[in-house]
Amino acid sequence: MTISFVSSGPGNPDLLTVQAVKRISDADIIFYDDLSAGEILNLAKKSATLLSVGKRAGLASPKQNQVSRLLVEYGRTGKKIVRLKSGDSSIFSRLEEEITALNENGLEFEIIPGVSSAMAAAAAAKIPLTRRVMSRRVQFITGHDFNGELPDDLNIASLIDPNCTTVIFMGKKTFPNLAQILLENGLDIKTKVLIAEDISRKEENIKKGTIEEILIYLKDIKSNHPAVIIFGPLL
Amino acid sequence: MTISFVSSGPGNPDLLTVQAVKRISDADIIFYDDLSAGEILNLAKKSATLLSVGKRAGLASPKQNQVSRLLVEYGRTGKKIVRLKSGDSSIFSRLEEEITALNENGLEFEIIPGVSSAMAAAAAAKIPLTRRVMSRRVQFITGHDFNGELPDDLNIASLIDPNCTTVIFMGKKTFPNLAQILLENGLDIKTKVLIAEDISRKEENIKKGTIEEILIYLKDIKSNHPAVIIFGPLL
Repeated sequence: MTISFVSSGPGNPDLLTVQAVKRISDADIIFYDDLSAGEILNLAKKSATLLSVGKRAGLASPKQNQVSRLLVEYGRTGKKIVRLKSGDSSIFSRLEEEITALNENGLEFEIIPGVSSAMAAAAAAKIPLTRRVMSRRVQFITGHDFNGELPDDLNIASLIDPNCTTVIFMGKKTFPNLAQILLENGLDIKTKVLIAEDISRKEENIKKGTIEEILIYLKDIKSNHPAVIIFGPLL
Repeated sequence: MTISFVSSGPGNPDLLTVQAVKRISDADIIFYDDLSAGEILNLAKKSATLLSVGKRAGLASPKQNQVSRLLVEYGRTGKKIVRLKSGDSSIFSRLEEEITALNENGLEFEIIPGVSSAMAAAAAAKIPLTRRVMSRRVQFITGHDFNGELPDDLNIASLIDPNCTTVIFMGKKTFPNLAQILLENGLDIKTKVLIAEDISRKEENIKKGTIEEILIYLKDIKSNHPAVIIFGPLL
């Protein structure tokens, strides 16, 4: 296998899978972005080429189609390529666009699943995301569409369901707007919210409170650190 | 740390995290069930005590409160205890009931997150679970409540949303019933469904088709093997 999409988990190398460690330490070329960088890249062999294709909110970075093109170009060399995806590659990682480019060019690939930030945040906060009777549905949404704003196709009824746990990815900036919409549509003001920043890293920071408390907290933090926000009956 | 809930992933030891491997190979006592057994237990040290607390659909096995009581009793010994949870422990693993027992008895614990079967199935099938614009919501439900039947609190509107990807855990037996309800409520008959059995194991089997094709397929298979069912716009 020459091209491997490798889910790199929330950032701590100990949360890589055994298979991910094998692929990273064996790769000739590694594509990484800001969230999959750091200590994980120390696992690469010395001769490996590390290519940054970071797309961090608000900073200039390669466009998605440039990333796809680079993957195709390097993929054709037959070298062992690893494309790191933070968290699990199936969740809000724009994996589909890169897969399509490889398929269109007849290049084979594999996908190594990993630990999603949602699950890592729940583990760090010592809560489950589901519970018998009380919460038999859990959903993941993104707080961030292509222009950095709240997506316009939110399923409001689904989000205010008191028996569902919701995890929001990349939602720190848009949560005040989302919270207002949900409260206006009937979400219980007493709903507890958890915000987990830099999960599994040295800077890990978990804050739990009512919606109102978390909104105040978000006003005060200006950091651009990655975070997931969880709300629902299990907090 | 004496008590570790360790997510054991979908079954292949290569999909354990590095941290999970450390905890398993260092444990004095390991609680496992059918889904977390197999090759993973080969990582235990020779002197470790392996205790089966399997709860497999339809077979006699320890009740949940007995499992919790055993965890508390062994937890008090101060030995290194690992409680394996298949997939990721936060998702439909009844983690909350065991956590509550430990909290009530003042016993500390940690949770090691892992690869969920949902993500492992998506990776094996080479599909993402989200996509820009087309599917910005993904949800996990269980097809199986405490008596083995379809839960009675299904959020139908959420499940027939054409812009959402749904993953059903433990839903092989109840899918025919669920599919009928969803179709009657407006789910598109052309919706594609994927059923992934024994993900990451030697017996891995992935079948994709329309709802009708998958319903016919399910009639023919009698196996009790673990499976996730995925449906939505990305298939």
